[in-house]
Amino acid sequence: MGASSEALTQVLIPVAALVGIGFALLQWLLVSRVKVSSHDSSNGYKVKLIEADEEEECIDNIEISIKCAQIQHAISLGATSFLFTEYKYLGIFMGVFGVIIFLFLGSVKGFSTKSEPCTYNKGNTCKPALANAVFSTIAFLLGALTSVLSGFLGMKIATYANARTTLEARKVMGFLLAANGLLVLYVSIYLFKLYYGDDWEGLYESITGYGLGGSSMALFGRVGGGIYTKAADVGADLVGKVERNIPEDDPRNPAVIADKVGDNVGDIAGMGSDLFGSYAESSCAALFVASISSFGINHDVTAMSYPLIISSMGIVVCLITTLFATDMFEIKNVREIEPSLKQQLLISTILMTAGIAMVSFFALPSEFILFDFGNEKEVKNWHLFFCVSIGLWAGLVIGYITEYYTSNAYSPVQDVADSCRTGAATNVIFGLALGYKSVIIPIFAISISIYVSFSLAAMYGIAVAALGMLSTISTGLAIDAYGPISDNAGGIAEMAGMSHKIRERTDALDAAGNTTAAIGKGFAIGSAALVSLALFGAYVSRAGIKSVDVLTPKVFIGLIVGAMLPYWFSAMTMKSVGSAALKMVEEVRRQFNSIPGLMEGTAKPDYANLLEQRRQQQNCVKISTDASLRAMIPPGALVMLTPLIVGTFLGVETLAGVLAGSLVSGVQVAISASNTGGAWDNAKKYIEAGGSEHAKSLGPKGSDCHKAAVIGDTIGDPLKDTSGPSLNILIKLMAVESLVFAPFFAAHGGLLFKFI
Amino acid sequence: MGASSEALTQVLIPVAALVGIGFALLQWLLVSRVKVSSHDSSNGYKVKLIEADEEEECIDNIEISIKCAQIQHAISLGATSFLFTEYKYLGIFMGVFGVIIFLFLGSVKGFSTKSEPCTYNKGNTCKPALANAVFSTIAFLLGALTSVLSGFLGMKIATYANARTTLEARKVMGFLLAANGLLVLYVSIYLFKLYYGDDWEGLYESITGYGLGGSSMALFGRVGGGIYTKAADVGADLVGKVERNIPEDDPRNPAVIADKVGDNVGDIAGMGSDLFGSYAESSCAALFVASISSFGINHDVTAMSYPLIISSMGIVVCLITTLFATDMFEIKNVREIEPSLKQQLLISTILMTAGIAMVSFFALPSEFILFDFGNEKEVKNWHLFFCVSIGLWAGLVIGYITEYYTSNAYSPVQDVADSCRTGAATNVIFGLALGYKSVIIPIFAISISIYVSFSLAAMYGIAVAALGMLSTISTGLAIDAYGPISDNAGGIAEMAGMSHKIRERTDALDAAGNTTAAIGKGFAIGSAALVSLALFGAYVSRAGIKSVDVLTPKVFIGLIVGAMLPYWFSAMTMKSVGSAALKMVEEVRRQFNSIPGLMEGTAKPDYANLLEQRRQQQNCVKISTDASLRAMIPPGALVMLTPLIVGTFLGVETLAGVLAGSLVSGVQVAISASNTGGAWDNAKKYIEAGGSEHAKSLGPKGSDCHKAAVIGDTIGDPLKDTSGPSLNILIKLMAVESLVFAPFFAAHGGLLFKFI
Repeated sequence: MGASSEALTQVLIPVAALVGIGFALLQWLLVSRVKVSSHDSSNGYKVKLIEADEEEECIDNIEISIKCAQIQHAISLGATSFLFTEYKYLGIFMGVFGVIIFLFLGSVKGFSTKSEPCTYNKGNTCKPALANAVFSTIAFLLGALTSVLSGFLGMKIATYANARTTLEARKVMGFLLAANGLLVLYVSIYLFKLYYGDDWEGLYESITGYGLGGSSMALFGRVGGGIYTKAADVGADLVGKVERNIPEDDPRNPAVIADKVGDNVGDIAGMGSDLFGSYAESSCAALFVASISSFGINHDVTAMSYPLIISSMGIVVCLITTLFATDMFEIKNVREIEPSLKQQLLISTILMTAGIAMVSFFALPSEFILFDFGNEKEVKNWHLFFCVSIGLWAGLVIGYITEYYTSNAYSPVQDVADSCRTGAATNVIFGLALGYKSVIIPIFAISISIYVSFSLAAMYGIAVAALGMLSTISTGLAIDAYGPISDNAGGIAEMAGMSHKIRERTDALDAAGNTTAAIGKGFAIGSAALVSLALFGAYVSRAGIKSVDVLTPKVFIGLIVGAMLPYWFSAMTMKSVGSAALKMVEEVRRQFNSIPGLMEGTAKPDYANLLEQRRQQQNCVKISTDASLRAMIPPGALVMLTPLIVGTFLGVETLAGVLAGSLVSGVQVAISASNTGGAWDNAKKYIEAGGSEHAKSLGPKGSDCHKAAVIGDTIGDPLKDTSGPSLNILIKLMAVESLVFAPFFAAHGGLLFKFI
Repeated sequence: MGASSEALTQVLIPVAALVGIGFALLQWLLVSRVKVSSHDSSNGYKVKLIEADEEEECIDNIEISIKCAQIQHAISLGATSFLFTEYKYLGIFMGVFGVIIFLFLGSVKGFSTKSEPCTYNKGNTCKPALANAVFSTIAFLLGALTSVLSGFLGMKIATYANARTTLEARKVMGFLLAANGLLVLYVSIYLFKLYYGDDWEGLYESITGYGLGGSSMALFGRVGGGIYTKAADVGADLVGKVERNIPEDDPRNPAVIADKVGDNVGDIAGMGSDLFGSYAESSCAALFVASISSFGINHDVTAMSYPLIISSMGIVVCLITTLFATDMFEIKNVREIEPSLKQQLLISTILMTAGIAMVSFFALPSEFILFDFGNEKEVKNWHLFFCVSIGLWAGLVIGYITEYYTSNAYSPVQDVADSCRTGAATNVIFGLALGYKSVIIPIFAISISIYVSFSLAAMYGIAVAALGMLSTISTGLAIDAYGPISDNAGGIAEMAGMSHKIRERTDALDAAGNTTAAIGKGFAIGSAALVSLALFGAYVSRAGIKSVDVLTPKVFIGLIVGAMLPYWFSAMTMKSVGSAALKMVEEVRRQFNSIPGLMEGTAKPDYANLLEQRRQQQNCVKISTDASLRAMIPPGALVMLTPLIVGTFLGVETLAGVLAGSLVSGVQVAISASNTGGAWDNAKKYIEAGGSEHAKSLGPKGSDCHKAAVIGDTIGDPLKDTSGPSLNILIKLMAVESLVFAPFFAAHGGLLFKFI
């Protein structure tokens, strides 16, 4: 493990990242070209899915073609405008929170510029606390910017995509995101090292700010975007489908454009930031823990870079899977999409297992020492192979179980659909029960991963298990992005007035998309659980806590209050979606009542304004924007302020309890919310599609059963796209924030108990 | 603190218990007499509520009077028949589980009959482990029988009560239950002492079996009864209100009798067992912890009996409140019921605070030593006064907050009602958000109680805080029983064909009843949290665990799996209610379609069979009975087997994690489920009553808003009456079971890790 392996590492990581980005850009180029020149069907299997009909209509019929482009443009414009408004809020937040980080961390040693003896690397001198304050702030800003960039690029790509390019576009997302995150992190470490030199403790302490930045942006993206998209979606459905009995995405409905804009800002941009955050945090957690291991203290660059090499390997593996595996199994019809995506996941998991083995034996010393809360622990390189692999495979299990509970190909969703016979109430009862039940196996999978990786390599094991789960992020994200993109595509087809055949196909794509979105959320939640635990462990080390004993009052009250936080958070986000949706409903009703000819299709709703006047926002889009951006502040504040308040006033032990409580409770709420919502959506689609005798007996669209199913779907919207996926950010974010502020809490925290 | 105070204690406890029972019997006598002779209106304020109209009709009109009696009789018969069927299952369970307890505990020292040195009372000799096995089994059976008796008597009283006696009947319940539990426990301790003599460690160890017996019966009562009542209720509503558009409790609906039977077996008998279980467990937890304190080792009978004296004082205080306070504030109309009940709760809380002060200074030495997980802790008697009082007042806070979130007099429920304008989906979203939000303050109240009582007097503090919260059990239970009894009364009025005026009044009673039921559940959950923590602490002491460190893999996986259990449990119970309701719906639909003249009111539904042929059960009653009794087995097994499996295979630390996890997660699920359900029910009642301009704009019955509200109400049924209230038993039961089996797990547990 000499200079040669070090040089190799130095090259491997940036090269993998650049290859990923390059591949993404190439794909994007192809995607864009498809949009303009149409008859070039040389780019892969997806063309066979929609090509035939759509090409006829959307290309040969110039009118529809122009309409397609107009709608696409309107959506893209709406999404961009929303995101820029959001970024103004985020900019203010970044500024304020950057100052807070600097002041809190700077005050740990009273803004002294004196160097100090290191904590772990005995005898050496480390950089002053003030430097950590400065670099943590910089890392925070870098993480935040990268996260915002990831979300924005994702949105841009998605709005470029259309029905035919769905399957391609999602690939771009995955690679761009994973590679982007890796590259910025790598470069930051490289640049920080110029100042820190030999002080790796300080270096990796400050680099955790990167994770904090990434995740805090993800939170606002998920919450703001989530409220936006669901307010529009619920609003559109309530008036359109329930009251006016017009189909989903009918162009007569004034809220449909807002709904599509929402898909892009919430599901795509939000989810992009979210997975980027998970990735950044688990890397930071692993690096921080590694910096105080024996190879960290010995300055073994290759071993130290193990977490980053794993991620690089992940990009390479996903690339191989995408290039070769997908072309080997051609998809002939819509029903094969789900199995094919599952297969891709399986292939990349198998390949990745081999990859991990290689990396573990190549990059790590065969034996080394980790710190396990004060105790030293001897670890072998094959231990770490097991840690990463078990995380990876647990992810696969979670993905498959999620598919079982949310796909309408299996009995759980079919049972929920069947319960619509007796109305919306039984549908909701069955759906909630399904969500609760779907928690069981993922929790066991997570528990086993935790037990194994914890036992083998303490907190480092957990952190790399999280990285293992995220290593197939490119494939996973591709799968996740699939849902909203195909939903979008279907919507555009409907609005542009394409034939019903196309709509049926895009509906099937959309149903597959719901399942894949749920799988993506499963990954996000599972990895969030592992990441938070690793961050929690790092926090405990850094705060100097000896043990987190449940049977001390300080810890226990933290635990129970922490377990309450996901409920508080969900209450806020759901209420916000509900309130924003009510406003949307009123506006849509107003337009239906006041615009003559709207129902008959002779007049256009007010959303069309947007197409002519770029600066004047349409009503429905504006309602969603305002409501969601105002509404994201209270839940955001809850998450960002809780660690600061608890740490400052109640001290490090109570905060440890809060982190553990919110972790174990939030995971359950998040999984059940996502799966319940996904199942309701697909139960509805199952009835609509009428693909079996059973499904036909429940349908068709507009039947009482279908109406009951639509109610379930509407209730599921905020659960699966607002509360659920925000909760995993809540868990991670509180943990990483506690980690960043740990030196401050350890030095000055627990004010309340000091006074009593 | 000599022989005189000891003699006083010996007298005070049984006398208080007997006075309570005597008072209850007297009240019951009055209640029964009201039913027969009607114009005797000398018994309190309640007559003024319903008297005028009902007396006219139900007494002066002989036909209606007979009908009333017939329906009453049918309900009573159905409930008795259900309970006896249930008791067969429970009898088998008691036998099997009794054997398990004996075998597991007997095997701790290989069924040896040799006496052993005591653990805490150094130098003394304690009874053999085999004796503990025998007496634990006896205590278990006693607890189980008392619990069953409490539930059965509650049901009997409730089915005796009718509209006019609602307010009286509920008093009977409270006193009978509290006094019954206290008396049996006291007598058991007295009798056990004949064998144990000086070995108090062994005595109080085996007495914990009493809590286990009480709670395990409560679990089956709550789950079986809860599924029964809600299957019938949901089934009746789905066909009656939603499809056929006939009012609630309309005699044409074949499921109404089953619905009313359900109220009695689920809400009354189940709840009676539940609160009895809480009471028994907190007493046992306190006694067990006390037995190893300095006054336990010194054999200070009075100090040792502190928990029982607190309960005795509770009975006395509630008696005073009932006798004097309620007569001072006469209720003139229905709107005053809620404030009056709240006032009663406040008065008994204030009086009880004084009572606790007296008891604490009289019964306890001014300073003594408690064991705090191996450390000795000096405690003063006024510390314990604070512990009990904070539990008591936290209960009041929880009660008031619950009222705020579930009463339709305040904005939260009105907002939910308002959201019905846009349909069932927004109603459900707002309702779920309300439930989540209602968790916040109760959790803070519980946390503060825990922190204070834990800091002052370790686990003993927590146990007596739980007793403090339960000390107003008689008032609290009276308040809780109020709901189902008045619901019943209203139902009978409707079925007997009384005038709409009466129905309107009973509806208002019922709305107040929903709120009081939610308050009762709030108490049950809050006290369950404290009780479980105390039991958890006792378990940890008894299992010899040094600390429950979250940051050890064994504990953490326990924590996350434990947090998952409430979801698993809820999934089972909700699915069961849903499935049973579907069957009920089919039967009701069948009857409507196959019995000519049923809708027109010229023919009777099939439930009437019951009135003529005692032995032949009616269809709808039978469906509910079968479905609920079969369905209670899997969730029951989950709760009863989890501690056994985890303890035996994964060991005491993982089990400790499971207990902590299920506690902190279950409390949230339980509170939110109860309050969401209560709020939906009252949002519906708010619209139906049309008591304000706002409410009128949403109504009347049968409007779209009202239909949406009915859907919410139906979804809430299993949440508030099946899953929610069963969860607090889950939490307590797993803790007490772990405590009872702790010696076995400590000796032979953790098989799996021993093999790896």
